[in-house]
This record gives sequence, structure tokens and C-alpha cells, in this order.
Amino acid sequence: MTKAFFYTLLVQIIISSCQSMNESSHHKPEYALVIHGGAGVITRNSMDSLTEKSYRSALDSVLTIGEKILADGGTSLDAVESVVAWMEDNPLFNAGRGSVFTYDGKNEMDASIMNGIDLSAGSVGNVRHIRNPIKLARMVMEKSPHVMLVGDGAEEFATQNGVGLVDSSYFFTQIRWDAHMKALEDEKTSAAEKHGTVGAVALDKYGNLAAATSTGGMTNKRWNRIGDSPIIGAGTYANNATCAISSTGHGELFIRYAVAHDISALMAYKGISLQEAANEVVMKKLKEAKGEGGIIGVDHDGNLTMTFNSDGMYRGYVIPGKRYVGIFGNE
Amino acid sequence: MTKAFFYTLLVQIIISSCQSMNESSHHKPEYALVIHGGAGVITRNSMDSLTEKSYRSALDSVLTIGEKILADGGTSLDAVESVVAWMEDNPLFNAGRGSVFTYDGKNEMDASIMNGIDLSAGSVGNVRHIRNPIKLARMVMEKSPHVMLVGDGAEEFATQNGVGLVDSSYFFTQIRWDAHMKALEDEKTSAAEKHGTVGAVALDKYGNLAAATSTGGMTNKRWNRIGDSPIIGAGTYANNATCAISSTGHGELFIRYAVAHDISALMAYKGISLQEAANEVVMKKLKEAKGEGGIIGVDHDGNLTMTFNSDGMYRGYVIPGKRYVGIFGNE
Repeated sequence: MTKAFFYTLLVQIIISSCQSMNESSHHKPEYALVIHGGAGVITRNSMDSLTEKSYRSALDSVLTIGEKILADGGTSLDAVESVVAWMEDNPLFNAGRGSVFTYDGKNEMDASIMNGIDLSAGSVGNVRHIRNPIKLARMVMEKSPHVMLVGDGAEEFATQNGVGLVDSSYFFTQIRWDAHMKALEDEKTSAAEKHGTVGAVALDKYGNLAAATSTGGMTNKRWNRIGDSPIIGAGTYANNATCAISSTGHGELFIRYAVAHDISALMAYKGISLQEAANEVVMKKLKEAKGEGGIIGVDHDGNLTMTFNSDGMYRGYVIPGKRYVGIFGNE
Repeated sequence: MTKAFFYTLLVQIIISSCQSMNESSHHKPEYALVIHGGAGVITRNSMDSLTEKSYRSALDSVLTIGEKILADGGTSLDAVESVVAWMEDNPLFNAGRGSVFTYDGKNEMDASIMNGIDLSAGSVGNVRHIRNPIKLARMVMEKSPHVMLVGDGAEEFATQNGVGLVDSSYFFTQIRWDAHMKALEDEKTSAAEKHGTVGAVALDKYGNLAAATSTGGMTNKRWNRIGDSPIIGAGTYANNATCAISSTGHGELFIRYAVAHDISALMAYKGISLQEAANEVVMKKLKEAKGEGGIIGVDHDGNLTMTFNSDGMYRGYVIPGKRYVGIFGNE
């Protein structure tokens, strides 16, 4: 091995351990929460300092909300639902209020949630008048015999269960509207600029895992397109035996590679770690297929990962006594 | 006794003694096709001989159509699309014409298709005016940047691509209407009686795998429920490196267990055979979770499986020189 090659390798190891952080504490944390607010072309050059500050502050707030639930003995399911709902309410993120617009100038949202205890799951697709799609996904899981409901039917189920519909104007934000208009003019807008998602995974004091994901989808999407966020196995998966995963990125690739389930399967059947499994799927399989994006995950021992092959990913984690918030690749 | 005859006899013995047949030839067949027409409470006592004959004849016709394509050098993708489209056109099966009715007395169909060469996939959900949902799923795969389109949007995509819509009356069959009315009166109708699906998996002369699945869903389903059939990883999966799988059964469980992808993952990561993987998922995991149903599969070496934990499954396979059709468990 040449000296130059050795140093190159060393630097690559350092870089990859920064981009995909493995919380390798030997002591299992009492609880753990990892969040993301989307991955893509997110660089220091493309973001002014005020915007950056807003995102960092929002991510920090999300961790505070989630940590309180988990520290107080709440379940991982409650924690991921609550923090995702908070991000849905925050117009900074492409989910709930602040969702991107479809080709037809509408907001159509998808969300899913999964409980690692018994693999129960709920999902909604293409809802247009639901303030918190993640709460409706949980309702589908707990109050219907089904896993996935879409469109008008999902909203009918909502109203029958006492969830009020909101006017579609609630979801409007000027910044997303401008992006919609720009994308209409410029068909060349890259996929990476068009998608965004929020998600959370958690381990609670009882050793249970849960995952939740929510999105407004892809800017100027058409034909009631469904991405990976509401697809159990692609955007969301949780199994106490392995891990809880939430994905964000180019949804079509994440569906074809069954990303969330594949990471769980690699752990279960190959016996490799969460971080090794995430690297295999995100940094190898997806990268080779030009599937830009990333995942967050936590395993049953409280090991964490935030692995992405894009420039940046809004992300953060909290375990007792330790907190991290990041946006760009090299931090 | 010739070697060929001995082999045929051996396979017949295996078939007659196993619900889950494994085609364990050491010689890779030039091509292979496996089909299903749904699994559930299908017993000799519950079926008159005329009905039984109709199903056997239909399954045999499907195999003839598929075998011709594969023997003539057609692709596995063309074969699975064509045979599933034929079953959609046949009112005996719960897919396309002959689909079951929703709670609101409508027909809403789902379908998906996947190409093992490059993991490309297409899927449609909740379409109501598409004669052959499987053909639309393939069109989504090949003519859109997306994997999954649902509802009105999927139909808009269809018309923009020259697919004519059919009146919803096309899908009406008296037998499904009667089942709908009966289910409205008797809420206790078991899940097993309410679902049904068609599917096909194939290996072509070029060594490529493909899978396709189509359904009318669950009788009296509500709220635009989406089952496993259009979910890549649950109802359908194909990867040249492992296998092609099509599922049929209680869709919610098949989604939660990511059944089709799980079988592929077990083969890839544990190095076990298609039949061992199918047993692990269908006869163990799903059975323990009371997830009734089954799968068909073919691997890259032409090994076949038709594995189900229900009383029966409409099924069949063909490889050069050999053909099998079955309905009940013990045949």
C-alpha cells in the first residue's frame, strides 16, 4: 500500500464516518430519537445564513419535543408521530403545511407509520385536506383493518373518525408556490431539488422501535404519483428484531430497492450492523442506481445512523446527554 | 423405465404429496412460467364440478398462452403481462372483468409489474375504467418517471398515452355482485372469502425474471383501500439475482411482512433456496401472524414454487415438456 493511497483511504474513512454517523456507544442508551427533514442538493453555497439558522433551530426544537416524550416514558410510536406532526406543521419542511405543489397546483400528501412491536402499520396517500397526514396514518393503523388508504377514501375515513378536514389553502406557502412556477417554466429542475420528506425513528425505554415518514411529494408531480414515503418497506419500516428506518430521496428508486425493508433484512439475515446495512443499501446499491437520498435508523441496541449519498440532509439525533443537528455533508 | 418417465413420475409424486411444490430439477429449464388465480377457502366441498372444470380449463389456457410466448423467444416481461391480462379479461378471476365490488358497489383495481433485469417497476392503484390494469402498470414503468400512480391521476395518464377508458359496467359480473350484497348483509364474511388475485412469474430464454400481479381487491373494501398487489416488495418483486414473486392473500399482512421482497432477501443474504425462503415467509412468518394466502415464484435457475398456507390456491406452471394445474391443497 502506497503512503498516498493510505492517506486517501484514511480521509475517505473520515469523510464517510462524518456523512454516515454511527453512534457506536457500548452502553445501550435509555432511549434514542433520530430525525430527518429531507435530503438533496443542500450545500453551504446554496443557503443563506438566516435560512440555515431557521432549519437548525427547527431541528433542535423537534429533538426537544421528541426527547421530552421519550424521557417521560412515552412510547417510540408516540414520539415519532409527535415529532413528524410538528414538522408537518412547520412550513420549512415539505410535509403538511409547506408541502410542494403538484403540476396542477395542488398539495397532495403521503405518510406512513410502523410499530416495531408487532409490525402493525398505517399509511395514507394523496390526501389533500388533512392537516397531519401522519396522525391519519396512525389512525388507519389502529382504527381500520387496513394498512393503506388513499385519496378521497382516506379523507372519508378521516371524517368518519372525527378528523376535521382543512381547506387546501392551509397548505399554501409562497416559497413552494414560487418553486412550482419555476419548475413549470424550467422542466430541467433536477429531481434532487424537487423532493423532500420528514421522518423520525425512535427507541423507547421499553425497547420498542417505531418509524414515521411524511411528505408533500415531488414538486410538480403528476397523475396522483405515489412515492416511497407511504410505502411500508420502502419509505418506512420498523421491526423490534432489527431496526426502525425512515427514508428520504428519489422515491421511485427507494421503492424499487425496498430500501427500508432491505436494511432490516440485511441485519436479520446477514447479521451485519445497522451502519453496515445502511452503507450497503444507500452508499452502494442506491448510489450505483443513481438513487439520491438517505435514511435514518435506530436499532434495538440504540445504535443510530444517518446515512445519505446526497450533498446534504437535514438531520439530528438525541440520546440521554447528547444531541446533534446537521445539514451539510461535512459536519 | 426411461429416465424422463422416472423424472416425470417423481415430480408427480412430489406434487401429489406437497402443498408447496419445489421444482428441484438439476437441469435449468429453457423457460418457466408459474401462475396463480388467488388463494383462500377453496375446498372440494365448496366447489361444484362444473366450476372446478371451468377453473382448470382457464388455468390450462393461461399456461398455453404464456408458454407460446416463452417458447417463441418472448421475454418474461411480455409473458407475465400477457397471461395476467388474459386472466383480467376472464370473469372467473378477481381482477379486471370479474373484479369484486367495493362497499359502495364499485370496482377498483390494483396491479403491478416488475422487471428482474434492472428492478424497474410499474404499479397502479384504485383504477376504475381500465380494462387491463396490468398493461397500464407496464406503461407506468416504461413511459413515466414514476413507479406508482393511483386513482384519477392514473387514468389521466392512461388517456394521455392513448389507453381508452371503459365504462364501469364492463367489470360487472352477477356472481361478484351477489357476493357484494351477501357481504353487506353479513359482515362476518371472512377475509379469506373476500380476497382474490391473479399473478404470474416467469423465467425466459435469456435468463431474465419478471413478475406481475393484478386484483380487484377485497370484497366490500372501503376508503380507497390499497392492498399488497400494487405494492412493490409486498405483492410483486423480481430480481434476476434471486427470484420473481407474485403474492395472493390477506394483503395487509403481506404488506407488513414485505412478503415478496423478504423471499428475495432471504435467498440473497442467507443463501437459502427459493423453496426454503418461501416456507420461511409463507408457512412460518405469515402463518404465525394469521396471514392467509400464498405466493408463486421462480428463481434464476428455473426452480419453481407454489407455496400457500390456505386451503387452496388456483395455480399452475409450465416448463418445456411439463405442465401442472392445481386448485386444492392436496393435489
